Amino acid sequence: MSKLTVSIAGGSGYAGGEALRLLLFHPHVSVKQVSSERNAGTRVSRLHPNLRSVTDLAFCTLDDLEPCDVLLICLPHGEGIARIDAFTKLADRVIDLSADFRLNDASAYKKWYGREHGRPELLGEFVYGIPELHRGQMREAKWVSSAGCNATASILAMYPVAQAGVIEPERIVVEVKVGSSEGGQGVSPASHHPERAGCVRSFMPVGHRHTGEIVQELGGEVPIEVSMSATSIEMIRGVLATCHVFLKDDLDEKDIWKIYRSAYGHEPFVRIVKERDGIYRLPEPKLVAGTNYCDVGFVRDPHSRRLVIVSAIDNLMKGAAGQAVQALNIMCGFDERTALEFPGLHP
Amino acid sequence: MSKLTVSIAGGSGYAGGEALRLLLFHPHVSVKQVSSERNAGTRVSRLHPNLRSVTDLAFCTLDDLEPCDVLLICLPHGEGIARIDAFTKLADRVIDLSADFRLNDASAYKKWYGREHGRPELLGEFVYGIPELHRGQMREAKWVSSAGCNATASILAMYPVAQAGVIEPERIVVEVKVGSSEGGQGVSPASHHPERAGCVRSFMPVGHRHTGEIVQELGGEVPIEVSMSATSIEMIRGVLATCHVFLKDDLDEKDIWKIYRSAYGHEPFVRIVKERDGIYRLPEPKLVAGTNYCDVGFVRDPHSRRLVIVSAIDNLMKGAAGQAVQALNIMCGFDERTALEFPGLHP
Amino acid sequence: MSKLTVSIAGGSGYAGGEALRLLLFHPHVSVKQVSSERNAGTRVSRLHPNLRSVTDLAFCTLDDLEPCDVLLICLPHGEGIARIDAFTKLADRVIDLSADFRLNDASAYKKWYGREHGRPELLGEFVYGIPELHRGQMREAKWVSSAGCNATASILAMYPVAQAGVIEPERIVVEVKVGSSEGGQGVSPASHHPERAGCVRSFMPVGHRHTGEIVQELGGEVPIEVSMSATSIEMIRGVLATCHVFLKDDLDEKDIWKIYRSAYGHEPFVRIVKERDGIYRLPEPKLVAGTNYCDVGFVRDPHSRRLVIVSAIDNLMKGAAGQAVQALNIMCGFDERTALEFPGLHP
Amino acid sequence: MSKLTVSIAGGSGYAGGEALRLLLFHPHVSVKQVSSERNAGTRVSRLHPNLRSVTDLAFCTLDDLEPCDVLLICLPHGEGIARIDAFTKLADRVIDLSADFRLNDASAYKKWYGREHGRPELLGEFVYGIPELHRGQMREAKWVSSAGCNATASILAMYPVAQAGVIEPERIVVEVKVGSSEGGQGVSPASHHPERAGCVRSFMPVGHRHTGEIVQELGGEVPIEVSMSATSIEMIRGVLATCHVFLKDDLDEKDIWKIYRSAYGHEPFVRIVKERDGIYRLPEPKLVAGTNYCDVGFVRDPHSRRLVIVSAIDNLMKGAAGQAVQALNIMCGFDERTALEFPGLHP
Repeated sequence: MSKLTVSIAGGSGYAGGEALRLLLFHPHVSVKQVSSERNAGTRVSRLHPNLRSVTDLAFCTLDDLEPCDVLLICLPHGEGIARIDAFTKLADRVIDLSADFRLNDASAYKKWYGREHGRPELLGEFVYGIPELHRGQMREAKWVSSAGCNATASILAMYPVAQAGVIEPERIVVEVKVGSSEGGQGVSPASHHPERAGCVRSFMPVGHRHTGEIVQELGGEVPIEVSMSATSIEMIRGVLATCHVFLKDDLDEKDIWKIYRSAYGHEPFVRIVKERDGIYRLPEPKLVAGTNYCDVGFVRDPHSRRLVIVSAIDNLMKGAAGQAVQALNIMCGFDERTALEFPGLHP
Repeated sequence: MSKLTVSIAGGSGYAGGEALRLLLFHPHVSVKQVSSERNAGTRVSRLHPNLRSVTDLAFCTLDDLEPCDVLLICLPHGEGIARIDAFTKLADRVIDLSADFRLNDASAYKKWYGREHGRPELLGEFVYGIPELHRGQMREAKWVSSAGCNATASILAMYPVAQAGVIEPERIVVEVKVGSSEGGQGVSPASHHPERAGCVRSFMPVGHRHTGEIVQELGGEVPIEVSMSATSIEMIRGVLATCHVFLKDDLDEKDIWKIYRSAYGHEPFVRIVKERDGIYRLPEPKLVAGTNYCDVGFVRDPHSRRLVIVSAIDNLMKGAAGQAVQALNIMCGFDERTALEFPGLHP
Repeated sequence: MSKLTVSIAGGSGYAGGEALRLLLFHPHVSVKQVSSERNAGTRVSRLHPNLRSVTDLAFCTLDDLEPCDVLLICLPHGEGIARIDAFTKLADRVIDLSADFRLNDASAYKKWYGREHGRPELLGEFVYGIPELHRGQMREAKWVSSAGCNATASILAMYPVAQAGVIEPERIVVEVKVGSSEGGQGVSPASHHPERAGCVRSFMPVGHRHTGEIVQELGGEVPIEVSMSATSIEMIRGVLATCHVFLKDDLDEKDIWKIYRSAYGHEPFVRIVKERDGIYRLPEPKLVAGTNYCDVGFVRDPHSRRLVIVSAIDNLMKGAAGQAVQALNIMCGFDERTALEFPGLHP
Repeated sequence: MSKLTVSIAGGSGYAGGEALRLLLFHPHVSVKQVSSERNAGTRVSRLHPNLRSVTDLAFCTLDDLEPCDVLLICLPHGEGIARIDAFTKLADRVIDLSADFRLNDASAYKKWYGREHGRPELLGEFVYGIPELHRGQMREAKWVSSAGCNATASILAMYPVAQAGVIEPERIVVEVKVGSSEGGQGVSPASHHPERAGCVRSFMPVGHRHTGEIVQELGGEVPIEVSMSATSIEMIRGVLATCHVFLKDDLDEKDIWKIYRSAYGHEPFVRIVKERDGIYRLPEPKLVAGTNYCDVGFVRDPHSRRLVIVSAIDNLMKGAAGQAVQALNIMCGFDERTALEFPGLHP
């Protein structure tokens, strides 16, 4: 099988670097070009020093991008909208890692992003990029939009019970604890190490944009109401989503197990983690750093109808580049796990 | 004024060490004895190395303890119950930092601790140790029971709106993020650095014992229902409590401000932290490490009736030893701030 | 005793904030003004959030500074040289925390700073600010220049054996491990949390400017040769200096003890830390964070004539603001420990 | 090619787990058995939770071990000596990751380990496990002893200049900064998170046992004298070795480059890292975590004849399991890089 060519538009950031790390070891693709306006001419390993000795590629400009089989867009949110026609001309298959085409609805976009979308007619044309929900569509898709990292963790946590219709659609509280790489590569006083290290910072107690994605993906005939808060903690990579939902009926943990096993029993990248003893009884982001796993676990509150669902991902992997490569594998007919088998480190 | 004598029963742990750090610099008290069965004869600075050159005190045994003016009990939970008569004979005033006498009700104790209380007739005889709620009683009290650290953060976060009756009593979700010192000095596989460092561990997703204290202190005629979860994060000292409550009426942030200012405007150790910009817009545990402050802030969710209230304390200070010394100051008629003025470090 | 007035030129940075934290609790001084060109008009607690509720002071400009009893200069290195005459007119006593007047010799300044000094005639007019070496001069001094943080740790580590003449003057290797606050408040890609967190970065393997101070202060008739390297590690505050020196004669640890005890036995802020067992056998920066202590310990290598001397300080305290306040206390005739008694936290 | 069978004696610890992580993805080997006396019967993923869903293997006892092609010994230091005959009977090829057979000389063993070696006649029968020094011997070897982690970093740092004979053999100072996983899986007060987190602890300022290996491997006709110190810092995996050596002649950096390029230009797992600008100018352990790389860089001190050589490894990888798998690949005639291609994460 001859290799497919893949290029990355906007490859100097963390998600772009992570995509590169994966694709350079993908047996069925060949990385053709990686763009960065500011770093054109520089070797990619200067910005992604983990790739030293792995590749000699240098950045090109966006205008230098040539036709390729698959294009990954890793530009800052909002920057891809105006160029989307050029990008879809360059490649048959496009995977956008930004937030530009995640929502299907222009009014939802305005609600969460506070501005009009420049190409509202394209909303809904991209398959929302979580394979566990949209694998079928993805097989036929030309355009995929990777999901937000916090949305991915939250959606995968709650999808089985939302689908099963066993939770109340209101008063769902989602708390995500996130690492500093979520903020991207741009320096700021808030990311300055003496200020950021050791912090527990309620940087987005209300109004988190990923709420829109969760509501879109988990709501059915009855819309759901999600109250989300995000807290920065001492961590570079990782998301832990703690979802507090209330059960309609008095299901016990065995009932819940069945629902989760039925939803995820055959998923290659979702593990149900729920042990009775030991240190790692529930999902933890540290164990999935660098991997494409989403670990999901849950505990039923014996004092109320609350079900606490916990999920852990690496925001740059299952929450961005890993999810995109998984989508690429599905779109191109490869084994879904290709280039994504790193199992993580311990300790 | 001649100094009062203070002794500590069980002073080898973190709370005992912290109490010692404060009391050794208290101008109106003199530390008389500190007990530790396992370390009797050893200098306290061996276990509390920050006190090197500050004190030459050595540990004695519990049996060695002599009468004193105030006794602080810093024994492990459950160990003080059987000895409480001996302790109350030793000192006129007793402050217990354990969980033994926090709940007023034997059935609540059984619900949260899973066993019968050995001296149920004494429950209710100790003043619950949060001065902001019980200052008046404390002035006359002989026995005070310091509140749990997570309970302290949660109660101080929600007390104003609970008192004002503006929140719904159901579906209150409290998420606490905690540091490793909460687990005390005992080693375990879960506290082994390679396993604990960098973790985001849902160690108590349901069933946290401090829930009982919160319900006791914040419930009025209508009992409240609190759903609490606790997550260990990379931090040594500190608690961040994120409380998700739902407003009965559509109050705006100004209304909430008034309620908080009225409750805490004159409190020496509660600061309302809520800024429009900058790095530190809401409370953070790092800024209160080593201090007796509880910082409280809040944000109204524009998309729902949710109010997110955030509070930060140092679990060993406002959550244990600092709270106890504040109580001691009140009980003994000293300025409440005595020995508690350290303002914290930045960065 | 009426209080002395103290002002701070350049108080928005970490050293200025730390000086403020100390001086606001100093019983014999009153903080008059604090300047910051960029933040004039802003409350100091916006930049130093640990001072919330402690002070209402706002920043003024440098030009606004009025005469005062003592002026602390906390400007970036190099910025004070051109203004030094204005500063010395404002206050009778001046303490400069920058590197501008630490070296006594213009050629040494050029060697280590790579440029000519603008006011070479003033070099040597400032007392070098380590009280343990220059307490006598300080009592009479009008101008003091605080020592560099890494220089302070290194000098206090080796001073006793250098003075005693028992170490070879050549091939002294000093390795300092430092926290991120040493780099100051300015953001940069290197201080961006995802890049800086968890790093072990040889940021200054050769050519560290503080070498000049060490050579100046420890060299006697025979000049000494110091090979210094500095490594950034995961820490906000703190310096650990590991000094490898070689003994001229085969002294044992008891001999070395005598030398250190004779040098530091009566020092209020230098502790000799050297224990046979336990966790904290030698100095550690964590234990001195927020304090003015310099902990010093040593171990004799049984396989060679090497003596390893280890010292720990808080770079913002004993390495900057604490040292300056200690100097102020000496210059003004106060008890040297005033406002500097915080003993540090554990754990 | 049919797969070789590999078993692990003592696979419950960190090095054993890491070997398992690599071997489970090795295309030419099949993991047959993994022993752990204490955990026999338990699934290996309970102790190595990163291997959840990757393997269903359970631990067996040492006595259960059956013949296999290659046996990796990951027992605690000293425990393998008495069993070595049994082990060498089980498998044709044996790789010992403990310290038991690293030194060639019984008197050196006694000097550094403080006891007699139980099987002195076997010392020298194991090839010392650094492939960059002993690849040729390894190809024919039946028995290999993996090098100590700190020794590996130090030896690879200095090997080129030691071989080239350009450094003085005396007064070599090696400072290693190490993570907490070096201490293994056993809990202790020193590894308790509140005590260990954020520490900078001179846990082995003199007398480090790996010194013996360095002297053995780098000494030629003229023995070398190495002064080693080890400091624990906030890190889980990783070693940074900073080696201070003094040049016999006034070589410049270009001369040194040639020596390093000649030694390592074709090595698959040693990268020379030395850049003029950017954040990552010299090796850093964070970038090699999880990888088998040893990054080596150097800087010439312009003020003296000192050369500072810096090397970074992951102690569990190039310092243990990765090195062992590299040796296995060489011994078995596989491509040396097999199963070792993970390039590390950034950020």
